[in-house]
Order: sequence, then structure tokens, then C-alpha cells
Amino acid sequence: MITGTVALDTIQTPFGKVEKALGGSAAYASFAASFFSKPNILSVVGNDFPKEYIELLKKRQINLDGLQITGKTFHWEGFYEFDMNEAKTKKTELNSLADFRIKMPENYKETKYVFLANIDPDLQLETLNQIKKPKFIVMDTMNFWISGKKKSLIDLIKKVDVLLLNDGEARQLFNTASLVKASKEALKLGPKAVIIKKGEHGSLLFTKDKHFSAPGYPLEEIKDPTGCGDCFGGAFIGYLAKTGDLSESNMRKAVIYGSVVASYNAEDFSLNRLKTLTMSDIEKRYKEFKDIREF
Amino acid sequence: MITGTVALDTIQTPFGKVEKALGGSAAYASFAASFFSKPNILSVVGNDFPKEYIELLKKRQINLDGLQITGKTFHWEGFYEFDMNEAKTKKTELNSLADFRIKMPENYKETKYVFLANIDPDLQLETLNQIKKPKFIVMDTMNFWISGKKKSLIDLIKKVDVLLLNDGEARQLFNTASLVKASKEALKLGPKAVIIKKGEHGSLLFTKDKHFSAPGYPLEEIKDPTGCGDCFGGAFIGYLAKTGDLSESNMRKAVIYGSVVASYNAEDFSLNRLKTLTMSDIEKRYKEFKDIREF
Repeated sequence: MITGTVALDTIQTPFGKVEKALGGSAAYASFAASFFSKPNILSVVGNDFPKEYIELLKKRQINLDGLQITGKTFHWEGFYEFDMNEAKTKKTELNSLADFRIKMPENYKETKYVFLANIDPDLQLETLNQIKKPKFIVMDTMNFWISGKKKSLIDLIKKVDVLLLNDGEARQLFNTASLVKASKEALKLGPKAVIIKKGEHGSLLFTKDKHFSAPGYPLEEIKDPTGCGDCFGGAFIGYLAKTGDLSESNMRKAVIYGSVVASYNAEDFSLNRLKTLTMSDIEKRYKEFKDIREF
Repeated sequence: MITGTVALDTIQTPFGKVEKALGGSAAYASFAASFFSKPNILSVVGNDFPKEYIELLKKRQINLDGLQITGKTFHWEGFYEFDMNEAKTKKTELNSLADFRIKMPENYKETKYVFLANIDPDLQLETLNQIKKPKFIVMDTMNFWISGKKKSLIDLIKKVDVLLLNDGEARQLFNTASLVKASKEALKLGPKAVIIKKGEHGSLLFTKDKHFSAPGYPLEEIKDPTGCGDCFGGAFIGYLAKTGDLSESNMRKAVIYGSVVASYNAEDFSLNRLKTLTMSDIEKRYKEFKDIREF
């Protein structure tokens, strides 16, 4: 089960622009997860949400029983400058997200694998509390919640198995320049693993006594990095749910599958590249990830 | 043979301060190379250069026949702030470096492995021209020369086998945010390989049709990053000179040895950590580099 946002995104990058394209953390994450398992979405959209987007998600066998439809869809407008490392927000219209109250379908409550993708940590916590016996919980967040709801966030981190953060967020949350120190602090709160996403520089997986460094994929051009972190998280938990193996060594593989799907996602706007992605594309790039780090 | 600077460094980081400590690109590089082969230094120091530093270099079997002694030693004063990614210069006193004229000992002219460590590109070029039949040439540079002597730098790049740059320099020199694009541009100039050093994020080795991504070592604390890039280059060419194997796959190993020595160097000020470093320390961390990237 994946909770988070489903949004309409208006995005400008040096390589083009899209208006009201399908976006949101839960949309990206469930799309990425769908290559490995059959995710259930828990989120909300508005009456203006295009039918074609619903069809797109359904075609990937994503279960939308938990997708409420009310009011107007959450709309984010942002842009990226030359270096593409940071999204700048122009406008955020929360719309139906502003008074989103969780109504969890009964069958969702039996979920074993839970991905709390980026959304208000109070909603993440409330979602988690309704799941009877979760086996494996992954959470993501963003700088906005670290500044605004740090206490809720810390409470939540104590309950999850894996914390996902990008490098800037890790430094911000634990008030240190050292990612190694930040990860140690995070592990002290309870999670079995912390994953630090570093964009083009790859990602780091820290567990109690191990460290894994995943390379970044050498993309010549990044068209739109929106949703890459969500894709990473979705593919990560999707692969673990599929294999049922939660060992550190299998988590390393899951990190690479996350990196693979995220790298494809950056090649085009919105979910455009993922629409035509195949499992054989994924396996091909997974093998490339092996080659580029072999010595 | 390694040319570059031998300096007295006054450095402040959040973890302490050293005054007139042994530094300079050729000092770091030859010290790092000495774990693998017997480097010859071509550089200049002043009459004030401490005897103990001479002894330190000699103890590592570094040949100082090409180290001129005249005037006052080049002195650099700089500091690092919280994030330690960029050295800020407080003062540069070129002293004897200002009118350094190359006098190459006859036996140096037979050198097969040449490392043109960071120094004025006109001096790098002049040095290279005096070597009879170089087999393998590696060069490094810095942002200062990219701004000030771009033409000389481009001329030099056309003559070398491997170009070393850090990520900021690669973006600056080739005027692109994409490191992949920057590397392709660099390869077009002639080098067989381009290595982009990314500090804590590791490094990238690009050849015509291959890409290698070396992880960064997860240091909890970096005391002083000065000279890490020089150590990387010195260990890189030192290992290649030792093995005599210039294949892409052996260059990958050389990149890891470079990363290992550089990571140790960051653990203390000046060459303090390297003074006590042993080959078994190096091999131990080389193995760790294998472990952290395995999946």
C-alpha cells in the first residue's frame, strides 16, 4: 500500500514544459512499484482529475479503491534551473488535499508492505495506525515537513523500518554536514535502514553495521527530475514485496532497482517515460549498474 | 615523475589549524605515489623549507634531484567552512614559485610515467616537452587556470592520456551542468580517459565507450581535505606505473587505490595521516571499497 499525493503538476525545466501533468508522490511511487507488485493507492484527487490518468494507473494494475474523489485536485507548479538539482515552487494549490481525511478500505488494513510516500507526516502516522500488522514500512518526506512538523516526523521515524531522505534533508534533519553522522543519528531513532538519495551521485544505504554505495546512472540529459525520489521508493519497496526477502543484501538489490526506475523517469516529463517502460528495459539497466561499478 | 608545487600550507578547518605545514600538489602526489613506486619530484622550494620535510620525503624514497632550492617557499593560506567542500584562499605568496624555471635532471628525461599535478599549465607543458618518450601522461589542474589560462590548458589536454578534474572544474571548463557531456567533450580533445573527482561522492572514470563509478568512502569526519585530489592522482599513476597495465579495467583499480589514499589523507591535517599509513592499511580499505559497492 502506498499513501502520498496524487497531483496535477505544471513543470518547467530547461528542456520544456508540461501543464497539469500526472504527478504526486503516490502516483510516481505506485507506478514504479507496479513493475514488481500490485500496489494499492491511498490518496485523494478532485473531480477535475482526468479520466485518462485514472486509466493509465489502472492499466498498470494499480488498485484505486483508496483513491477518494472530491473537490479539485492538488496542483503544484514549479520549475528547475540550469543545474536541475532543486525544484523551485511557484505555486501550491492544496485543494482537496487540504481537508483529506483518510478512509481506508477494509482490504488495505491487511497490508504487509507499506510505503508512506511524501505527504503530511500526521497523515502518514494516521495511515500507519490503521494497518493491522504491517511487516515492512518505508517512509519518505521532504524539507517542508522537516521545517514545519519535525516532532511528528521524529515520532513517525521511530515506527518505520526504512527512512528515505535526500542528502539535503538528511543534513537539515540531523543538523550535521556529514551524511555518515546523519545516518547514524537516524538509525538511533529505530529504523533498520536509512537510505540517502543523492540525485546524480547515486544513493547510500546505511544499516547498523553495513554501508552500501549505489552509483548514479550516467544520464547525459535529465529532462525532468520530478518524481525520481518517489519512483526510487516505489520500486524499492515493490521489489522487496515481490521477493519477500528483507535481508541487507536484498535491500541493496532493491536500491539498484529503485535507481534504475528513477533514472528512466528523469528522461522525460511526468510519467511519460515510465508509460512505455518494460521489465526488460529495467533488467538491461540493472545489468549496466553492475558494469559501471565493477573493479 | 611528478611535477607540481611543494608548499608550506597554513590551513584552518572546523577541526583545527596547522601553520606552515608540508603541502603542495607535488608533495601530496609523490607521497601517495610512493606507496606503489619511486617517484621523482620536479619542483621548487625556498631556503626556509624545513629539513624535516626533506627528510620525510626522502624516507618515502622520493627522489628530490629535481627539487630546486631558492628564495622563499611558496606559501598558501586557506580555510574551510562547515561543509568542507571548497577551500577558500586567504593568502597566496608565490615566492620562489613565481620565477620557477624548469631544470630537469638528465635521468628524469627518460621517465615513462608522468604526472603533471596542479601548477601553471605553461610549466606543465614545458615539463612534458622535455621528456623524451613518455608512455603515460596524467594531468590535473584547478579552477584558477581554467579562468586564467584556458588556451594553454586546452593545448595541454590534447597531449595527455588522462585528464583529472573535479566536478566543478569539469562543468566550468566545458560550460555544461552535465558531467557526462563534459567528459565527452574532454575525450574529444584527445585523452584516452577523463576522471572526475567528486569528493565525498566518489569519482567517475570515462573512456571512449565505458563508464566507471567509484564510490566515496564513508568517512564520519573529514579533518582536512587539502591535497586529497593530489593524493588521488599520485596513487592512481603510482599504481599504474607499478603494474604497467594501462587497460581500462586496471585503471578502475587505480581509481580505487587513488580513492583509498585520498580518504586516508582527509583524516588528518597535512600529510600527518599518510606518514604512518602502511600498505596493509591501503589493502584493507581497498577491500572495504569492494564491499560497499557489492550487490
